[in-house]
Amino acid sequence: MQRVTAKYYIETPLDLNHAATVLAGEQSSGTFVAVPGETEELKHRFAARVESVTVLDSSTTPAIPGVEVKAGVYQRAMIEVSWSVENFGYNLPVLISTLQGNLYELTQFTGLKLMDIEFPHSYSQVFEGPKFGVDGCRKLTNVYDRPLIGTIIKPSVGLSPQQTAELVRTLAGADIDFIKDDELLSSSANSPFEDRVDAVMRVINDHADKTGKKVMYAFNISDDMDEMQRNYEKVISAGGTCAMISLNSVGISAAKKICDIGELAIHGHRNGWGMMNRHPLLGIEFPAYQKLWRLAGVDQIHVNGIQNKFWESDDSVVRSIEACQKPLFGGYSVLPVVSSGQWGGQAPETYKRTQTLDLLYMAGGGIIAHPGGPGAGVTALHQAWHGAVQGLTVAETASKYPEFALSVEKFGKK
Amino acid sequence: MQRVTAKYYIETPLDLNHAATVLAGEQSSGTFVAVPGETEELKHRFAARVESVTVLDSSTTPAIPGVEVKAGVYQRAMIEVSWSVENFGYNLPVLISTLQGNLYELTQFTGLKLMDIEFPHSYSQVFEGPKFGVDGCRKLTNVYDRPLIGTIIKPSVGLSPQQTAELVRTLAGADIDFIKDDELLSSSANSPFEDRVDAVMRVINDHADKTGKKVMYAFNISDDMDEMQRNYEKVISAGGTCAMISLNSVGISAAKKICDIGELAIHGHRNGWGMMNRHPLLGIEFPAYQKLWRLAGVDQIHVNGIQNKFWESDDSVVRSIEACQKPLFGGYSVLPVVSSGQWGGQAPETYKRTQTLDLLYMAGGGIIAHPGGPGAGVTALHQAWHGAVQGLTVAETASKYPEFALSVEKFGKK
Repeated sequence: MQRVTAKYYIETPLDLNHAATVLAGEQSSGTFVAVPGETEELKHRFAARVESVTVLDSSTTPAIPGVEVKAGVYQRAMIEVSWSVENFGYNLPVLISTLQGNLYELTQFTGLKLMDIEFPHSYSQVFEGPKFGVDGCRKLTNVYDRPLIGTIIKPSVGLSPQQTAELVRTLAGADIDFIKDDELLSSSANSPFEDRVDAVMRVINDHADKTGKKVMYAFNISDDMDEMQRNYEKVISAGGTCAMISLNSVGISAAKKICDIGELAIHGHRNGWGMMNRHPLLGIEFPAYQKLWRLAGVDQIHVNGIQNKFWESDDSVVRSIEACQKPLFGGYSVLPVVSSGQWGGQAPETYKRTQTLDLLYMAGGGIIAHPGGPGAGVTALHQAWHGAVQGLTVAETASKYPEFALSVEKFGKK
Repeated sequence: MQRVTAKYYIETPLDLNHAATVLAGEQSSGTFVAVPGETEELKHRFAARVESVTVLDSSTTPAIPGVEVKAGVYQRAMIEVSWSVENFGYNLPVLISTLQGNLYELTQFTGLKLMDIEFPHSYSQVFEGPKFGVDGCRKLTNVYDRPLIGTIIKPSVGLSPQQTAELVRTLAGADIDFIKDDELLSSSANSPFEDRVDAVMRVINDHADKTGKKVMYAFNISDDMDEMQRNYEKVISAGGTCAMISLNSVGISAAKKICDIGELAIHGHRNGWGMMNRHPLLGIEFPAYQKLWRLAGVDQIHVNGIQNKFWESDDSVVRSIEACQKPLFGGYSVLPVVSSGQWGGQAPETYKRTQTLDLLYMAGGGIIAHPGGPGAGVTALHQAWHGAVQGLTVAETASKYPEFALSVEKFGKK
């Protein structure tokens, strides 16, 4: 029978095999005494199985609160646990409850992080996955052989639809590929969703008529289920090509329903991610996370950026981009969205470490606050990536391209 | 203008006011340089506001990775931040992105936990909240003046619909009030959802016809949006009164859509909670969490239990029960679901500390594995609560009631 396998990074002061067995038991049988009906045959068919335990380093203090031991050694390990698909079928929420549910409550662990998930091939026959992915997003924006260059409307909340549209006009004129709402804005008092869509798409459609280039705008449709569907329809009827959802805020059942419609590229924002990832020994790592959202059908997913303004390390960001690059069932292509404090100076390092141009590279202030104006800001980003592909350093790129030189002057480390 | 106020427990090596201001800025303006259009008027209307900073203790080591300082003091504080309702209106996902979004990524913090949320009164005019709550669940089960006594079908996964129905027959005969699917089971290979509903409801309806007592069974409808709605309809058509959803696994947009139907009491399972709560300085605390789900309309919500088998402290469990007891806008009643390693021995302490009988008190093995059979198991739980209300200790209750005495013998601490 086909099985789903999950890899966990764990810490426990108890015997490793015992702790792993408790996890497997809790997540498939789940009670504290033997009960009638729990036959050997049932156990064999439905019990989770500990596939491997790989001992790592240890600590003298627990990473998170758990069982107390005297003078204990808190042993870390990587374990693999598998479940038969017979347990949950192709039901993502129940899969999530199985892989990420009550196990985080187990006192036997002083650390528990879901690192990765392997699905059996039958999942590819059930889940459609991303309808656009990298190729689809390139086709919609007509951008090839370089990252898509994008920006976020700022300030996040407060601009009127007309002000937003004016900014879009400026950015479209600057030859930008992609613009998005901030995740803090869907409908505000002075920017109702429908009015903003109308105002923005009028500018984008005009620009497309004149130049042949249709800017992709990710409208934040996140809301209640019905409202989200109405928002989606509104974007389609106005000629839009993309909708954004805050993945953690709306949840996977609603997100999948939206992705399944399949007419817009779905921009998956991962805000709230820090809550589930920031501690090294609690929560979930991106390689596992992004697989769930690719199954659900998200076309673009946030991965933070090199030298970002947040807490995350460059190594972690690189791992996230690499996770997106790896095919899932030979496909399920997803476009990594690089953002947070990006202005182009990070392009050489990003390219050097990931060797890919299949990115949506987002700069906020880096474009809109460029000394030469937004047009120069976009140009500077193109130059940054030209330099990166040629293997130039930031300084070498700056000496070659004047707009990028201005970016370095304004946004580079003093 | 009406405002939503959130309370955070924070830790930072930086100036507290500076860090709080960064949080407020990130969650309302959100870029790293001043941009055109960010006028004083816009800021005044839409900017988040730091309402208070209350200094607490400090630490010499950071709770979670963040900004690095030399020989730093990591100061802890409680801060309150408020947002105008104009920013997000009555959109729960965008509210969540605002209160629980990118702020967890801020390097300025080495600890950040959302403790509580205050909503303006206008929220009560928009969100219907729980359709049943405590009174509705009591009416559906005809149970008054004591906790509802419930159990979970175990083993979690593996029983056929017929085996499940037989267990339900036994439990109904034992005069149980409530039974639930395990969160790991919705449709398994040998227990398709519809077949289980049919088999279980046949028994429950028969029992109700004979005795006038309709056992409430929470079928786990968690799934994709459409499937979840189909599951819901199936439960209604079979005469059921309750559906369970794994809140974190399906997400709030889908959950609210289900709650809004309003024909079944919704049992909210919080599995995955440990991931967002277990670290003392990361994530969210239950008082904040349960408010969001009450707004969404959940009628019953898990709170763990006193002396549980998981990692959580009794103090934390008591706070969670108290949070559910507090009216929201004078109502929005929600029934706390007490579970995890419960067998009745915890009733005296639970009652002593919470002084409430408005609980759904769940025992798994404590009922089904009772030495006198499930009937004696349910009787023992009634006895436990009789004793608790009379202010008796476990030993005193045991000396008075034989079935409970057997529970103590089997499940009490050796």
